[in-house]
Amino acid sequence: MLHVIGLGLGDATDVTVKGLETIRTCDRVYLESYTSILSTSLMDLEQFYGCSILEADRELVENNADEILPKDEKENVAFLVVGDPFGATTHSDLILRAREKGIKVKIIHNSSILTAVGCCGLQLYRFGETVSIPYWNNNWRPNSFYEKIISNRQRNLHTLCLLDIKVKEPTTESIVKKKKEYMPSQFMSVSEAATQLLKIIEEKNEGITEEAALNKSSLVVGLARVGWDNQRIVACHLGQMASVDLGPPLHSLIVPAVELHPLESEFITLHTCE
Amino acid sequence: MLHVIGLGLGDATDVTVKGLETIRTCDRVYLESYTSILSTSLMDLEQFYGCSILEADRELVENNADEILPKDEKENVAFLVVGDPFGATTHSDLILRAREKGIKVKIIHNSSILTAVGCCGLQLYRFGETVSIPYWNNNWRPNSFYEKIISNRQRNLHTLCLLDIKVKEPTTESIVKKKKEYMPSQFMSVSEAATQLLKIIEEKNEGITEEAALNKSSLVVGLARVGWDNQRIVACHLGQMASVDLGPPLHSLIVPAVELHPLESEFITLHTCE
Repeated sequence: MLHVIGLGLGDATDVTVKGLETIRTCDRVYLESYTSILSTSLMDLEQFYGCSILEADRELVENNADEILPKDEKENVAFLVVGDPFGATTHSDLILRAREKGIKVKIIHNSSILTAVGCCGLQLYRFGETVSIPYWNNNWRPNSFYEKIISNRQRNLHTLCLLDIKVKEPTTESIVKKKKEYMPSQFMSVSEAATQLLKIIEEKNEGITEEAALNKSSLVVGLARVGWDNQRIVACHLGQMASVDLGPPLHSLIVPAVELHPLESEFITLHTCE
Repeated sequence: MLHVIGLGLGDATDVTVKGLETIRTCDRVYLESYTSILSTSLMDLEQFYGCSILEADRELVENNADEILPKDEKENVAFLVVGDPFGATTHSDLILRAREKGIKVKIIHNSSILTAVGCCGLQLYRFGETVSIPYWNNNWRPNSFYEKIISNRQRNLHTLCLLDIKVKEPTTESIVKKKKEYMPSQFMSVSEAATQLLKIIEEKNEGITEEAALNKSSLVVGLARVGWDNQRIVACHLGQMASVDLGPPLHSLIVPAVELHPLESEFITLHTCE
């Protein structure tokens, strides 16, 4: 059987009791290591779970998934995912491959950044479509996420912006040389995300006075390390967020609706940046 | 300290290891018992956690919240919530009261129906605003959720419909007599939700040919007891869903976007009703 197990957002103890019991019965245990991070090291996880863990990078999951799947009916494989197995990243493909081969699949859910952001006090039923903000480079500056944020704001909805993560990205040279060399990991910060948003506004907003449009004074909420012991939440103007330092990754940014519910406002005040 | 702890969606073992360790150090433990249900009884929970649990009904939480809060700095109180503490129902009010009194609050996240529905194969980043479908009665037939579903479909987004739960609702007599009497609990099924949707369509759709509009042949996905051992997922036409019996509660209904991603279609086929 293939067990796809969410680990939650913080440390080793954020696994569920059911998840832990299952991991301990598995013959092989993989940790999906390219779409998120935990606050603990692989070694700490191994010690807590009492088993050795194989790292599953993007190449293994996307190109050699069969290697992960159980070899026969008796083998139990755990595939561990930070957050919920169906959270920010879906592993539909792996699960579909297993089902095609007649392998049973069991899911053990856990918390996801998609719902844990509710801790800032904005109500989850008022969130519209989630967007991803990618790193820009000289040739590639996509901004379709901005349209989605505005579309949510026009309907008086909040937007959760997931910020880009680059882990084990091959260097340009390595692609040419066919020799594996990776760039250092990169995790977009709330200040980088705010800076990109400000650039888009500068280019787009000329003459726009619509209430749903963003400007430097729009309220935004920066969240860092949600679910970790050193979690931080700061609410401030978009202009200010460009210079806010929330420390190590992972960060997320929320662009709230134009109008807040009184309870939301009261809660957000707790996070207001001086 | 006030510990607000998510229990996840299934049974006693869906609590996180961190959550369980925290519960066992608490002086008083409350279970919020009016917005969701687990697959196990209160007694099973007490046995597994090794402590006694007080039930917190709507009246206690909304009108006598101070009774729940820790009496002094030394007291530790656990407030247990099915799913995630900030999931379908927020407990912002309780947390704000605690903060006002200078009481420290710690959140332990867990899975929520809002993300666990990803198990049907529809991708979570393609969900728009979540809606709630309430029970209709003779005098009250709200249908604003329909507009929101259509608005999501116009943007090619899925809609999760949370279905009404009535637990410990006072009877009309009891309100008049000022004597506490409650109606039997009610949990809306996917077939009841589909039936209400079909009635709205009948009234609204005359002449509407827009692609985003719903009709009897629109694909919908019914989910029952997500995260439980006996979870069921069925994908079929809205017209068929009105007579599908997915068994005991809780149920949720998804109205997918007009277009599905190929991986989503493949996954949904696994749940197709014969």
